[in-house]
Amino acid sequence: MIEIKDQSLETFFDELASKAPTPGGGGAAAVMGAQSAALTSMVCNLTIGKPKYAEVEADMQALLEKSEALRARLTGMIKADADVFNRLMATYGLPKDTDEQKAARSAAIQEALKEATEVPLACAEACREAIDLSRIAADKGNLGVISDAGVAAMAGYGALKSAALNVYINAGSLKDRDFAEAKLAELEALLQGAEAAAEEIYQIVKVKL
Amino acid sequence: MIEIKDQSLETFFDELASKAPTPGGGGAAAVMGAQSAALTSMVCNLTIGKPKYAEVEADMQALLEKSEALRARLTGMIKADADVFNRLMATYGLPKDTDEQKAARSAAIQEALKEATEVPLACAEACREAIDLSRIAADKGNLGVISDAGVAAMAGYGALKSAALNVYINAGSLKDRDFAEAKLAELEALLQGAEAAAEEIYQIVKVKL
Repeated sequence: MIEIKDQSLETFFDELASKAPTPGGGGAAAVMGAQSAALTSMVCNLTIGKPKYAEVEADMQALLEKSEALRARLTGMIKADADVFNRLMATYGLPKDTDEQKAARSAAIQEALKEATEVPLACAEACREAIDLSRIAADKGNLGVISDAGVAAMAGYGALKSAALNVYINAGSLKDRDFAEAKLAELEALLQGAEAAAEEIYQIVKVKL
Repeated sequence: MIEIKDQSLETFFDELASKAPTPGGGGAAAVMGAQSAALTSMVCNLTIGKPKYAEVEADMQALLEKSEALRARLTGMIKADADVFNRLMATYGLPKDTDEQKAARSAAIQEALKEATEVPLACAEACREAIDLSRIAADKGNLGVISDAGVAAMAGYGALKSAALNVYINAGSLKDRDFAEAKLAELEALLQGAEAAAEEIYQIVKVKL
C-alpha cells in the first residue's frame, strides 16, 4: 500500500518541481491545507470509540464532520487552482491586433484576474478554518496522537501564508482597485492572529507530549 | 493528467485521515518538506535557460542539483517514517511473561525509540535545508514565479516544526538520557533562527510580487 501511495505522491512532486506551470504554489497551498484537515480527522478517528474519551465523543464526531467537509473543499481547490491559472494564461494569449481586440483581451484578463484572486482567497479562508479545527483536536483529542494536531496547525498555517501570496500577486494586477482592496481586506482578516493561533496550538500540543 | 494526480493524492489524504496509524504527522512532515524542495526546483527550472536570468544561471543549476537531491531524501522519509513507527509498535507487542522476556522487550523498545528519534531528526535537518535553499530561489529566481519560493519557505518551516514534534515524543520516552539530550540539542540547533529565516524569505518574496 505504502509503495503505490509513495509513487503517486512522487508523481505530484515531479510535476510540482517541473517547469510545467501547474501545479504551482497555489496547488501546494491547497495540498498543505488538505493535509491539515486530514490530520485533524485522524485525531478524531483515533479518539472516537475509545472508552477513555467517551466524554468528548460528541465533540469529536462534530469535529470530524467539519474536518472531512473541509478536506473535501481543500482537495477540490488543488484542481481549481490549476484551472483558474490556465484560464488566466489563456486570456494573455487572446489576439490584440485591433483596438477592439485589445479592449476585449484586457477585459478578459481582468475578469480572469478577479477569479484568480478569489480562488486563493477561498483557499486561505479554508486554511484558517483548518487551523481553528486543529485547536479542538489539540484540546480534546486522544493524547496518544496529539502531536498530529500540532502538525495540523503548522500545515494549516503554512498553507494559509502560501495561499495569501497568490492573492497578493493577482490582486496587485487588478485595475478594479475597489474589488482588489476589498479582497485584500478579507485576506488580512484571515491572517489576523493566525500565527499566534498556530503557535498557541503547537505549545498546547508540546506540553501534552 | 490532473485527474489521475488528484486521485492519488486523495488516496494519501484518505489514509492520513483514517485511523490507520501510518501515515501520520511524521509522514505529513516529510511530504511538506518534499513539497518545499520541489517548489525550489520549480523556480530553478523556470529560471534556467531564460536570457534575462543568464547571470544567475550557474547558481540556479547548482541550487537545482541540491533541491532535487533534497527532494529525493525527503520523499524517502515518508516511507522511513512509517517503517520506524511500525517497528516501534512491533516491539510493544513482544512477549513479557518472564523476566528475561521483559528485559529483552524493554531493550528492543529502547532501541526502536532511538531510531524513532533519529528518523524525524534527519527529517528536521532536511527541512531546515529546504528553508535555506528556498532563500536562494527567493533571492535569485525568475520574478514571474517568485511566489513559489515563498511557498517553499513556509512549507519547509511547517515541515520542520512538525518533524520536531516527533523528535520530542520519542526522545521523551528514551531511558538513555545522554542520547536523548544530545538529539534534542541537535534539534534545537536546527530550530534556532528557522522561524526568522522563513519569515525573512516570505518578506523578500512579498516585496518582489
